[in-house]
Amino acid sequence: MEGKLSHYDPSGKVSMVDVGPKTETERTATARAYVVLNRAVVEALPTNKKGDPLEVARIAGIMAAKKTSELIPLCHPLPLTRVNVELSLDENGVEILATASTVARTGVEMEAMTAACVAALTVYDMTKALDKSIEIREVHLLEKTGGKSGTFRREEGR
Amino acid sequence: MEGKLSHYDPSGKVSMVDVGPKTETERTATARAYVVLNRAVVEALPTNKKGDPLEVARIAGIMAAKKTSELIPLCHPLPLTRVNVELSLDENGVEILATASTVARTGVEMEAMTAACVAALTVYDMTKALDKSIEIREVHLLEKTGGKSGTFRREEGR
Amino acid sequence: MEGKLSHYDPSGKVSMVDVGPKTETERTATARAYVVLNRAVVEALPTNKKGDPLEVARIAGIMAAKKTSELIPLCHPLPLTRVNVELSLDENGVEILATASTVARTGVEMEAMTAACVAALTVYDMTKALDKSIEIREVHLLEKTGGKSGTFRREEGR
Amino acid sequence: MEGKLSHYDPSGKVSMVDVGPKTETERTATARAYVVLNRAVVEALPTNKKGDPLEVARIAGIMAAKKTSELIPLCHPLPLTRVNVELSLDENGVEILATASTVARTGVEMEAMTAACVAALTVYDMTKALDKSIEIREVHLLEKTGGKSGTFRREEGR
Amino acid sequence: MEGKLSHYDPSGKVSMVDVGPKTETERTATARAYVVLNRAVVEALPTNKKGDPLEVARIAGIMAAKKTSELIPLCHPLPLTRVNVELSLDENGVEILATASTVARTGVEMEAMTAACVAALTVYDMTKALDKSIEIREVHLLEKTGGKSGTFRREEGR
Amino acid sequence: MEGKLSHYDPSGKVSMVDVGPKTETERTATARAYVVLNRAVVEALPTNKKGDPLEVARIAGIMAAKKTSELIPLCHPLPLTRVNVELSLDENGVEILATASTVARTGVEMEAMTAACVAALTVYDMTKALDKSIEIREVHLLEKTGGKSGTFRREEGR
Repeated sequence: MEGKLSHYDPSGKVSMVDVGPKTETERTATARAYVVLNRAVVEALPTNKKGDPLEVARIAGIMAAKKTSELIPLCHPLPLTRVNVELSLDENGVEILATASTVARTGVEMEAMTAACVAALTVYDMTKALDKSIEIREVHLLEKTGGKSGTFRREEGR
Repeated sequence: MEGKLSHYDPSGKVSMVDVGPKTETERTATARAYVVLNRAVVEALPTNKKGDPLEVARIAGIMAAKKTSELIPLCHPLPLTRVNVELSLDENGVEILATASTVARTGVEMEAMTAACVAALTVYDMTKALDKSIEIREVHLLEKTGGKSGTFRREEGR
Repeated sequence: MEGKLSHYDPSGKVSMVDVGPKTETERTATARAYVVLNRAVVEALPTNKKGDPLEVARIAGIMAAKKTSELIPLCHPLPLTRVNVELSLDENGVEILATASTVARTGVEMEAMTAACVAALTVYDMTKALDKSIEIREVHLLEKTGGKSGTFRREEGR
Repeated sequence: MEGKLSHYDPSGKVSMVDVGPKTETERTATARAYVVLNRAVVEALPTNKKGDPLEVARIAGIMAAKKTSELIPLCHPLPLTRVNVELSLDENGVEILATASTVARTGVEMEAMTAACVAALTVYDMTKALDKSIEIREVHLLEKTGGKSGTFRREEGR
Repeated sequence: MEGKLSHYDPSGKVSMVDVGPKTETERTATARAYVVLNRAVVEALPTNKKGDPLEVARIAGIMAAKKTSELIPLCHPLPLTRVNVELSLDENGVEILATASTVARTGVEMEAMTAACVAALTVYDMTKALDKSIEIREVHLLEKTGGKSGTFRREEGR
Repeated sequence: MEGKLSHYDPSGKVSMVDVGPKTETERTATARAYVVLNRAVVEALPTNKKGDPLEVARIAGIMAAKKTSELIPLCHPLPLTRVNVELSLDENGVEILATASTVARTGVEMEAMTAACVAALTVYDMTKALDKSIEIREVHLLEKTGGKSGTFRREEGR
């Protein structure tokens, strides 16, 4: 295996590593999560006219992206230039795509992952009275651009 | 389907519902998450002598439980009496079990789920330099006790 | 004038005063705010099908109630049992009613006021591209119940 | 009506819109709020020698400006370069002027508005034991400079 | 040595330990800190008429007490019933006494210590342009009451 | 005495002063704190195999650096590029060195001081069951580089 764990200094200690020498570039990342819901819940979701739980989850995901460096101990605080969270209902549950962007010295992978997770937790919270077996699955990075390591795109079927 | 979506008032609007009339009782919840890691990462994890990434994730999970009502829009703030986060490495990745307890008018399901998710995100963050295909899976409630709805235990094999 | 400034100790210094000897009782408060919008904005608001700005403001108000003791220096942290924020559009703008409840040793007046203000600020934020003359007005307490000082109701026409 | 609601993407969904392509420029905004107090309170305020409630409100306003992106869901986090909050007592109450500045890709209008509101809420909190009819009024933007939309100054008498 | 490290479960792992079985009682703690300032700064401090840096530090200390469980990883969140921070200038610097109280299942020692430290850091921050050799010293617990372990008072001269 | 108190505007009022006209440069600061522990605690610390309290304190210090502008009222929010916290046990207690870096318009002295203090408070919290006489001492700035005022290094023996 090449490479090493993130967030360790040369002596092997946990550290918020120095990104000062890195260049400010535009960076984006997109993460995905999926909330499995039973059939009854999937059918119930669109019938609530006055307040859409997926809208609540969207707001929660956007706000959580801004809290990433408070939640993840070694994350650098970043001036986010964009956060977008999409939720779409299909017959098995809710798919969440979260995108974050910045112009900074390090990437926004964790911001996208955190937004996706918190949006998923909020879908769970809004529907949990209907179904105790809800599961959040397949939280992963879809794409990452910018920075020295270049573009990453997750392969299909992984 | 019986029951209704959580966090809606009788007119169908999103609301932090009134738990004032409910009784303060001891309540606990345990949630689970699993972080799939490739073989090379699983082998690399125990070799870092001076700072264990699973310890960082444990602290992150415990601290996140205390932030649940800031992250999940309709969650009531609760005086947590206990938070425990266990991480164990097996050949496919890291299993996370998070338990939260309170003596309060509503349950701690979301606190346990949030602790499990943020611990999983932190494992991801500490290992992401080694493996871009890491996935967080199987985030679900294992058990819940206390309150009017009584004890819930997830069935095997779901 | 009877009474004295809030949050001062007997020697005249600012203090988070001792509410330990007070009794835990159910307490509620309702506050109001009004956001004046020009006619064009009032007409534009209901036409946005996919994301209602008043729903975003409702979520923001509910979440802000939970942050009251972080924002207002001498406020005691309280375990809120309920937060409800209602927004209604009329021909001159948006009226906001925010209600907070707790079972605690001190009241939730500031939680209701903070929720109303932050919901109003969010309405402002969502509409400010359309109208720079938006004004938040008439932020006041409507009603307060519970605690030693008993029930307060704002007189009409004040 | 020209223009459109803020914080919506082209498909009509709520989003923290992309400011990455915008240029970093110096931006400032000044907002105003007014807290109406009854005569007895106005007379009482300057007599408290050891701790001035308007100083507490000033600190609260400055600190709140730094929390704007946590409170207002779609606000971008900004590196504030300056926050100034002035409070002045006249015969009808307290006038608050809050100014925020940044060097960033988007403006600080909401930071100035939030600082003014939270300073006003704090004046309310410090004086509420004396007067239940206190009202916060006339919260609006006075001036805004920098960015593509240029300088805005509120007209007198609005 | 009797006793064991705080915040470890029986298997030796870090944990927010279970205080659920403990009884809610009134608990208080008082902590002290001292900020050593050079003579010139000590003389300069009282001459600033319009804004007293010790008042800013007092507010910062009170607000920090409310953030203790966010800062100290294994601290339980507690409903503080009182926070008081006293600062007094003598010829060598500023003495800080911070007292916190609660009615809860565990003590407020860390809340008092955190309030004292953050008030001291704020005195440092307000005066650092005048003196780079400022030092915070003698941060310790003075007294603790309530709970099973009973009353503790620091001996003179330690 | 030359110079003046920090964070005051020309009229003598507390203000988050304007750093907009200053140049973005790389800035670092290192602060120190010392936690005095009794002999029994010093001997007990290394024997806890499964969770090192100094690792918990390291994480707490790093996370606290990111909260500095929330805690210290007049601090500017800064995009930290690095935070490093070292803890070393000697026969009298634990020495803490905290370093923060940024590329910004103002310095990171308070971030380093805050990280050192919160790491020290966490050492206190983890060991307080063993020793009530623990004291945090000698919290001071060791070094500061970057910015107009240039490099500062604390003299030995102060």
